[in-house]
Amino acid sequence: MHVDSIVHYLLGRRDEILDNLCDFLRIPSVSTDPAYLGGMRDAQTFLVNWLKRMGLSDVQLLDGGGHPAVYGAWNGAPGKPTLLIYGHYDVQPPDPLETWVTPPFEPTVRNGRLYARGASDVKGSTVIALETVDAFLKVRGACPVNVKVFLEGEEETNSPSLRAIVERYGDLLQADGMISADGARAHPEISTINVGSRGIVEFEISIRTADKDVHSGRYGGAVRNAAHEMARIIASLHDEDGAIAIPGLLTALSPVPANVRAETAKFLFDEVAFVKSVGAHAHGEHGFSMRERLTLRPALDVNGMWGGYTGVGYKTVIPCTAHAKLSLRIVPGQDPDQVSAALKAHLRTVCPPDVELSIDNPETGSRAFNLPTGHPLVVAAKKVLHEATGQEAVLVRLGATIPITAIFQELLGVQTLTFGFALPDEDIHAPNEFFRLASLAEGLSAWPKLLEQVGELSADEFRSMATVATIQQV
Amino acid sequence: MHVDSIVHYLLGRRDEILDNLCDFLRIPSVSTDPAYLGGMRDAQTFLVNWLKRMGLSDVQLLDGGGHPAVYGAWNGAPGKPTLLIYGHYDVQPPDPLETWVTPPFEPTVRNGRLYARGASDVKGSTVIALETVDAFLKVRGACPVNVKVFLEGEEETNSPSLRAIVERYGDLLQADGMISADGARAHPEISTINVGSRGIVEFEISIRTADKDVHSGRYGGAVRNAAHEMARIIASLHDEDGAIAIPGLLTALSPVPANVRAETAKFLFDEVAFVKSVGAHAHGEHGFSMRERLTLRPALDVNGMWGGYTGVGYKTVIPCTAHAKLSLRIVPGQDPDQVSAALKAHLRTVCPPDVELSIDNPETGSRAFNLPTGHPLVVAAKKVLHEATGQEAVLVRLGATIPITAIFQELLGVQTLTFGFALPDEDIHAPNEFFRLASLAEGLSAWPKLLEQVGELSADEFRSMATVATIQQV
Repeated sequence: MHVDSIVHYLLGRRDEILDNLCDFLRIPSVSTDPAYLGGMRDAQTFLVNWLKRMGLSDVQLLDGGGHPAVYGAWNGAPGKPTLLIYGHYDVQPPDPLETWVTPPFEPTVRNGRLYARGASDVKGSTVIALETVDAFLKVRGACPVNVKVFLEGEEETNSPSLRAIVERYGDLLQADGMISADGARAHPEISTINVGSRGIVEFEISIRTADKDVHSGRYGGAVRNAAHEMARIIASLHDEDGAIAIPGLLTALSPVPANVRAETAKFLFDEVAFVKSVGAHAHGEHGFSMRERLTLRPALDVNGMWGGYTGVGYKTVIPCTAHAKLSLRIVPGQDPDQVSAALKAHLRTVCPPDVELSIDNPETGSRAFNLPTGHPLVVAAKKVLHEATGQEAVLVRLGATIPITAIFQELLGVQTLTFGFALPDEDIHAPNEFFRLASLAEGLSAWPKLLEQVGELSADEFRSMATVATIQQV
Repeated sequence: MHVDSIVHYLLGRRDEILDNLCDFLRIPSVSTDPAYLGGMRDAQTFLVNWLKRMGLSDVQLLDGGGHPAVYGAWNGAPGKPTLLIYGHYDVQPPDPLETWVTPPFEPTVRNGRLYARGASDVKGSTVIALETVDAFLKVRGACPVNVKVFLEGEEETNSPSLRAIVERYGDLLQADGMISADGARAHPEISTINVGSRGIVEFEISIRTADKDVHSGRYGGAVRNAAHEMARIIASLHDEDGAIAIPGLLTALSPVPANVRAETAKFLFDEVAFVKSVGAHAHGEHGFSMRERLTLRPALDVNGMWGGYTGVGYKTVIPCTAHAKLSLRIVPGQDPDQVSAALKAHLRTVCPPDVELSIDNPETGSRAFNLPTGHPLVVAAKKVLHEATGQEAVLVRLGATIPITAIFQELLGVQTLTFGFALPDEDIHAPNEFFRLASLAEGLSAWPKLLEQVGELSADEFRSMATVATIQQV
């Protein structure tokens, strides 16, 4: 049975698929906040039941000490490649709640857009992937490749137990490659294939200048103020242009290869429109295009800072503590441990000796990810996208982080193609996140074709192509 | 009947007075936060009923558009001076709640200390003042002076409607001088009289760098981060020593007169112990002793700052807004409007042009206060304190602000003696605020003697002494 009939079947079920996605979105599966533990469990149950219903074997929760991953396999294509299919069921916190037009966990369609926390990141694309497998099994009774579904529960907290899961269930997770539902499209009209993403290192820093908050009339002029000290520390992280000012952090980087810069320039990118779309202004390191800054250069951001009285009205205290959450996006060639050490050393240098500094580093840094351009998954994706659009897909890199890619590459030698259908303007991690209903249809057309395309190779052919591509890349 | 019998009566009622104070402290009269409006109303009712019970006339709420003041008068001493007696019934917010050993609005005695929000600032001393008037009227049937009780409800929010109240009720509030229950003692063992206090100007500043928070992977390296910008702004307010770095703000100040520096040096002040008692380290402008920095030099403090995600775990956003609350303590010679203008000009200069800056300035700045050292209230206080302790009281200045002093001086020509019995270590504006039971007894001994002492002067004598003192001071 031709793959077109699978696509036809899926597009005919669009309303039911949307209902199913909405059920998934109603579950508040926020992984970072223990208050949502019930939502995390409900999402696991939702997925386990679904994988069982579609007939996968070995359906189970893979436990690594944190939120477990949901797993299920279909091994009915002997001699064909085995692909992991990745998605994640956790979402970002919905704060600030008051700026949502409709509540974050009550999915609502407005103007062809489905609004809900997690709609774009990444329940929408995860549902596309799972419906694709479901359709192959229902309509044809078989998938074109062997499939191992792996749905993570800690992507939004940078996968703290993913390493433990992959180590513990290494045998179960052996595969020839991985296709990820996470990893958005770069542009609404241009066909792109992601061949890289930045890594990440995160920190929470706290300082203390006294045992307690004191009255600003009584002590003002005599003692340090934790808010002032934290401001000085944060101000020391960048120069006036916004370039990272931490000694050694940029200078240790190798120059970006000319062919990568050239590839990056191929992607049409309207810098003005990009920042204007969120009401921002361009700001960043000199000597690089914005697209280069976003994908090939590290970026250090304070994600939150606080200290002292933040309620209504005034309270004349000198705060004794202040806090900041920091994330550093890293690029190929940067080692998470080395950049962590450089950042910590800098913080300790700029913090005055009579100020107590503590740095909490969850030790879940992810390296940047690089997918060889000749990899069979890239070749297959190029073909599918060319057939769908008539365009040659542009190879792009992501500024964001998909920790899974680095971990699966390192522990299992598995390369990942990101094939998500989210778009960059869908307000992920922010209020009023949405997913385009048009993207749902596009994804339901492309995913079956991609699996079919990969299934045209034998497992051996797939492996040897992958090996050659990796050697050529290095 | 000798004043000693009044003191004897008061000390005999110590347990009932403590009970009465505890009733007052149980009322959560937080003026800054609208959530406590009920507590504010309960405190007004508590005081109105008490003033009526003690037989004051004209008992009423004086409304200036915000939280009203509570007023009551006793005019039975013709030819004698008329004194305003000032206290305030509002308290600071109790946050952070989790660090209180016992709840802030459940007064608890431990080791001779009464713990509750407002115990030290300033319900304890306010109760001393009111019990004194009550005792004179109960025991002697008369006070030594005419009395106008004025209990403010907005001291902790810097008295936004006090000016309106004093203007509207100017005739009612005419007096020869004022004694304030607010304004703490400077030292537990050394007798002091406050002859000055710093003024204050407050601001809340907000910046905006984009229309919405964006994902730090998607936008990191391309746009400004509001937390970074706020940190740069805050870091620009001081130099490395902690001296204010706002152009014109310090240079516009006249040098502190030599006699004031000499007076300041008379007060034994252990710099090391002062900062060590709160676990802090000395930090501030060079060229001045700590005591001078605290009372004769301006101090600018960030009382709170916040931006981005401040909850549990991590959220990789680039915040689009950040906020800070600032207070600037000002000294004699500084005009609130001028320093406000200098601070605003500085903020606008350091804020990049593509960052939106808004400055909310409640316009309730208070000038610093100076009480002439020959004023009859100072002379009376010196005598009372000398008799009580055998020591010559040291003239000191407060680092904190009592906005009422500047406003009454400006609008009614009324000078204020602060005669509160709080001590500097009582954690006002912080968790576990307390008031010493010993201070309650000391206050109940001193207040009747002070009123008696002032009552030895006729109104005319009081006024001419005050006039001469003011002329000599200038």
